[in-house]
Amino acid sequence: MSYFGGFYGLEKRDVDELELVIIGAGAAGFSAAIYCSLLDVNYLFLDAEQGGGLINIAKEIENYPGVVGIRGPELIKAFKEHLQQVGGEVRAFEPVQELHFVAGGLLVKSNRQTYRPKAVIVATGLEVLGLKEEFGLTNERDYLGKGVSYCTECDGPLFKGKKVLAIGNPFDAFLLQRLTERVSYLGPVPEEFRSQVPREIIEANNIEYLEGQLEALEGENCLEAVVVDGARIPVDGLFITRRKAGSEIFEKAGLKLDDDGFIIVDRQMATNVAGVYAAGDITGEPWQIAKSVGEGAVASLSVFRFLTGQRMRNLGWALKDEWEI
Amino acid sequence: MSYFGGFYGLEKRDVDELELVIIGAGAAGFSAAIYCSLLDVNYLFLDAEQGGGLINIAKEIENYPGVVGIRGPELIKAFKEHLQQVGGEVRAFEPVQELHFVAGGLLVKSNRQTYRPKAVIVATGLEVLGLKEEFGLTNERDYLGKGVSYCTECDGPLFKGKKVLAIGNPFDAFLLQRLTERVSYLGPVPEEFRSQVPREIIEANNIEYLEGQLEALEGENCLEAVVVDGARIPVDGLFITRRKAGSEIFEKAGLKLDDDGFIIVDRQMATNVAGVYAAGDITGEPWQIAKSVGEGAVASLSVFRFLTGQRMRNLGWALKDEWEI
Repeated sequence: MSYFGGFYGLEKRDVDELELVIIGAGAAGFSAAIYCSLLDVNYLFLDAEQGGGLINIAKEIENYPGVVGIRGPELIKAFKEHLQQVGGEVRAFEPVQELHFVAGGLLVKSNRQTYRPKAVIVATGLEVLGLKEEFGLTNERDYLGKGVSYCTECDGPLFKGKKVLAIGNPFDAFLLQRLTERVSYLGPVPEEFRSQVPREIIEANNIEYLEGQLEALEGENCLEAVVVDGARIPVDGLFITRRKAGSEIFEKAGLKLDDDGFIIVDRQMATNVAGVYAAGDITGEPWQIAKSVGEGAVASLSVFRFLTGQRMRNLGWALKDEWEI
Repeated sequence: MSYFGGFYGLEKRDVDELELVIIGAGAAGFSAAIYCSLLDVNYLFLDAEQGGGLINIAKEIENYPGVVGIRGPELIKAFKEHLQQVGGEVRAFEPVQELHFVAGGLLVKSNRQTYRPKAVIVATGLEVLGLKEEFGLTNERDYLGKGVSYCTECDGPLFKGKKVLAIGNPFDAFLLQRLTERVSYLGPVPEEFRSQVPREIIEANNIEYLEGQLEALEGENCLEAVVVDGARIPVDGLFITRRKAGSEIFEKAGLKLDDDGFIIVDRQMATNVAGVYAAGDITGEPWQIAKSVGEGAVASLSVFRFLTGQRMRNLGWALKDEWEI
């Protein structure tokens, strides 16, 4: 047996030093926090509200593998309990307002304090753009889980054999067409749609295309109809799929975004800035809990490697590329 | 209200036509199958054995968010039950032996039959390379969950304050060094390690580097020591992290692999071949259930879009790039 000694010579890190701030407590943030607690990373987990994000409004979740038919708030509770069991917690009502990448580190400024972590995971999710801004309607949430949905792939299967209206992204109409009896799509008509589509395709049918002003949602208990330009159209479901990434402060900080405002990441969830990772809905479609949970796990392990690499580099060790993130 | 008619004119697909084969029933495969059942994709879900893959040997899983402290076989049972509830099932003991990409389609040849699906999800995972081949030792599985682990990030946290030996990837030693009291690493010494590391770093200490022949694992009930070149070294844990992707048939079929034999995918889990996606461990590190589940979900939604796009194209509709996968 030949013995080369403990030649990496890493000293035990200062356990008080802040290593990571996780921004946003949705599925991706919880996943990252659970991993970081298990991996003994010294982190802070901040949320602008009380945690859970869009999952709070999910009526029934059918597609988180291994957990059948759970309501959104229950899943958030399960995430919170899991995190507590491994020794972590969310700091609620502490929104991050600014992010700066400075020589030798990162600055994260919340409504309470400025932090200097070595790494950041951005997991702030996205906002649903409702009907208020464009159509002045305010009662869509009365029908949430009773006809109104914000997620085509999640809730489309619940509308088999039914009639639905899609607002937002024309592609969603195509997805819904496979799943439902009839799809109406309301939205702007790209010019090439009108000029390029052969007549026989127009005449065949089960997506219909509407233009006009959405004036009302109607229904006693569940959604029963929408009113477009004065005409009442019976529908069982309404899919509102316009999204906003809410990534202004990250763009300002220098993170590269795609055309739709989502943060560009690689397969390790690394952004264009060293030490900054992103996970979950803010990295783009599809907007799924399973994807967010997976990306949160990957991002936290990338941070763990990044922190390890940084310490090795500080000790003068020239890292080989294959050990880089 | 102006009305342009149902101009996409998609006809209802032939529900008997096989749309997808999912190859491999680990976490990624189950996730994809659950999604595809919900989305009404006509698919087959094949496994070479009875499903579950490496999760079957996981003693305790602490890091699947929302599900605390579950044993591997229990998690597989939960996946299977979830899949049954949404109407799907695994075809066990039907290994895929060949894959061909031919003009206009794909050919998947199993030990029983040849299929012609429109899309494929490869989720065959990876193999753990045990101690048998290199060291001729056959008793490592006696200590599984009792000291022996195949996953640094999963089980490292269980060894806080303990002594461990890592075999395989030197980077794992660095990861373990953060989590445990002392790490020994057994494996080949890259020449640059010897030449580049400053003496003061060699003298500081808590990873030690060993060379030699692993001759035995010892311990009454739990692992207590390893024997290297005749010397007994007390350890609490042994991490064996060498992996093999087992992607020969996919390489033969023309899928691009990285240097370590993992299938190269983009963020939508698309490979270099149209209609072929990959998910889970076979797409590379980190090897985590959460990552696999997330990638299975993303791959299935990509397939759903691919199938929709293919039908639109067949109808003569010139898809805009932004609707491509």
